Amino acid sequence: MNPARRLGPQVLARAALTYLAEPGDPALGALLEVCEPAEVLAAIKAGTPPSIKAGALLATGSGPADSPARRRALEAAFGRWRLRLPWLPDDTGLADGRRDGIRLVCPADPQWPGQLDELGTARPYALWLRGQADLRQACLRSVSMVGSRAATGYGAHVAGEIAADLGERGWTVVSGGAYGIDAAAHRGALVTGAVTIAVLACGVDYPYPAGHADLFATIAEHGLVISEWPPGRQPARLRFLVRNRTIAAVSCGTVIVEAGERSGALNTARHAAQLGKPLMAVPGPVTSAQSAGCHRIIREWDATCVTRADHIIEMLSPLGTPETLTATGAALPSRTQEPATADAAPSRDELDTDSARVLDALPARGAAGTSTIAAEAGVDLDTVLRCLGMLAGSGFIERCDRGWRLRKP
Amino acid sequence: MNPARRLGPQVLARAALTYLAEPGDPALGALLEVCEPAEVLAAIKAGTPPSIKAGALLATGSGPADSPARRRALEAAFGRWRLRLPWLPDDTGLADGRRDGIRLVCPADPQWPGQLDELGTARPYALWLRGQADLRQACLRSVSMVGSRAATGYGAHVAGEIAADLGERGWTVVSGGAYGIDAAAHRGALVTGAVTIAVLACGVDYPYPAGHADLFATIAEHGLVISEWPPGRQPARLRFLVRNRTIAAVSCGTVIVEAGERSGALNTARHAAQLGKPLMAVPGPVTSAQSAGCHRIIREWDATCVTRADHIIEMLSPLGTPETLTATGAALPSRTQEPATADAAPSRDELDTDSARVLDALPARGAAGTSTIAAEAGVDLDTVLRCLGMLAGSGFIERCDRGWRLRKP
Repeated sequence: MNPARRLGPQVLARAALTYLAEPGDPALGALLEVCEPAEVLAAIKAGTPPSIKAGALLATGSGPADSPARRRALEAAFGRWRLRLPWLPDDTGLADGRRDGIRLVCPADPQWPGQLDELGTARPYALWLRGQADLRQACLRSVSMVGSRAATGYGAHVAGEIAADLGERGWTVVSGGAYGIDAAAHRGALVTGAVTIAVLACGVDYPYPAGHADLFATIAEHGLVISEWPPGRQPARLRFLVRNRTIAAVSCGTVIVEAGERSGALNTARHAAQLGKPLMAVPGPVTSAQSAGCHRIIREWDATCVTRADHIIEMLSPLGTPETLTATGAALPSRTQEPATADAAPSRDELDTDSARVLDALPARGAAGTSTIAAEAGVDLDTVLRCLGMLAGSGFIERCDRGWRLRKP
Repeated sequence: MNPARRLGPQVLARAALTYLAEPGDPALGALLEVCEPAEVLAAIKAGTPPSIKAGALLATGSGPADSPARRRALEAAFGRWRLRLPWLPDDTGLADGRRDGIRLVCPADPQWPGQLDELGTARPYALWLRGQADLRQACLRSVSMVGSRAATGYGAHVAGEIAADLGERGWTVVSGGAYGIDAAAHRGALVTGAVTIAVLACGVDYPYPAGHADLFATIAEHGLVISEWPPGRQPARLRFLVRNRTIAAVSCGTVIVEAGERSGALNTARHAAQLGKPLMAVPGPVTSAQSAGCHRIIREWDATCVTRADHIIEMLSPLGTPETLTATGAALPSRTQEPATADAAPSRDELDTDSARVLDALPARGAAGTSTIAAEAGVDLDTVLRCLGMLAGSGFIERCDRGWRLRKP
């Protein structure tokens, strides 16, 4: 039996699209919100944008729906995707990945981690996986731990220790498979036999860095090596930046262990903050350039200063649980402590317009990320962040693994 | 001419009271809010509480003004002060301090640092000074830098470097004269020829620790050695804790450089936070027990993570100055950044009751500390802290050197 037959046309189309478009291409992301993947693939092959639904896409932006500039942008996108049509394997080739122990997980698949949907139009088209673990399950209690490639002995030691502690307590460590902090985090988790996930910026079968081929094989054996890029694809500088949003989105929160002032880890940190996910950093000596980025995000981005696994787990557990309250028994009000009384908070009717809009934008059930809320409320991100803080302080909402949710009365 | 003649009776009475009562005695602090010092001193000598005004004092608390329990407490206070009457030098003896280069500064004196009044009834009765510098002037741009006695080489190095940078930029370094971080901070400031202030928990002529006799002499020569305790008084364990509130109150903000989990420096940090003053901490390796207290207050008390003098000066400068805005050019909203627009903030009429009370409690001119505001508003400290944050976020008020003040429209 041809294994390709076992894959539906939409799944095969998503596999094909990972070959044609760079992950995070906003045109494809927006198109996939209004068209079926197979329809988009057929249109790319035919060289004609799907006109009616593309009109729907265009209408999702601001300005005239069918302006010549918008049409030109869409045609340019189709042009660049068509350039890669020669890279497209046939259906058998797409399915071959499965034989090499590589498989595809698509949105709506039972193993798809729902939190990736918070990325909106920047959501991965699909994920290629190496390893047998259940991706969704592994991400339910997961921490992204990333940092400098040029780690110091201190940083590597601390990353390994914290990752091992997290692994022992049943948390999955997600990282980027790079030298330095990433490798120390993966290895720390592996020592405890815990699942660890390496999110690559190249094909899951592409050994980059070359010195980590064995590490990736071990990770695939006990956990997962995943990527938005198709098998065989090489890494590129910009791909690491695009990949970082997935590292931030797929887990419950992100910890930075050592990062220079210009480290790529700060890009991951920014994605986590923009998604409304808990952002944490491990401090180090102020005399070490490799800790300067950590100190900067603690000071300027309000990242939480964490020094051990306990602190991380506390940040990622729902607020108000006995665990949290016990752990923050400080005499002064801590950042994670809830107000003692909700009586003093303004009523819903007393909120200013923006705060009321932001509150309305939260889903009745479940949670939403900051950017999703901003989009839903139609309020700019800075204002949304301020309103969310006020609403949380007033007891209307609370932070959770997946962003923000309404607080039960 | 007898130098004692040059001192007014109220000043001599305050000098005498420093001999009779422990600094921070709430009964004496409250009495001095309603009675003249000379009147209190005369009453202590006579053994009779000043009855009418004591009634006023009693009325400042809650419960019946002349309850037997309150009267007994006041009588007990007079009892313990009278026990020290034999310690009291005669007027000539009090004035003798001036001949040894020791002088007294009292509230309302031109050299009295006004910010000490934020301590309310815990305000020092008076301060004994060794050194020629103008105390009020020296405190206008000052930073308290304290930390562990058992400092590591890292901590002492960092404290010295930051103190020297602060000194070079015209800031006074205030510390407690102890071994370790305190000594490194004083010495760093002295290197640059800047004024540094040692706040002791014993008489300014009492060399404790003994190994710092030369350091105190040098500080007195270039800056000030100050104390609430009279000349000759020995230090005691509890006196250090009482002294810490003055270290926190006399400066514009407090920086902790290395503190173990149970370090006395955290007591100073708590005073700074309770006074609504900027609280900062220098991080260090998470593997160092001497940095654990710093990390804890960054995480749990919202202390700002600072790694160099720039960060400290930025925290202590009025918000919204070009200096601040340039220094926090991060893409994400920083803690010190003001909201982009005040339009979205609730109007004064839309505030909840507590926030409206807190806003009303701020003085029309100048600033007030958190505890003063809490008292004025009649709202508990936790709620006040929450309201102040909300009001600052909404653009009504801003933090400044002296606490909180109304923001100009």
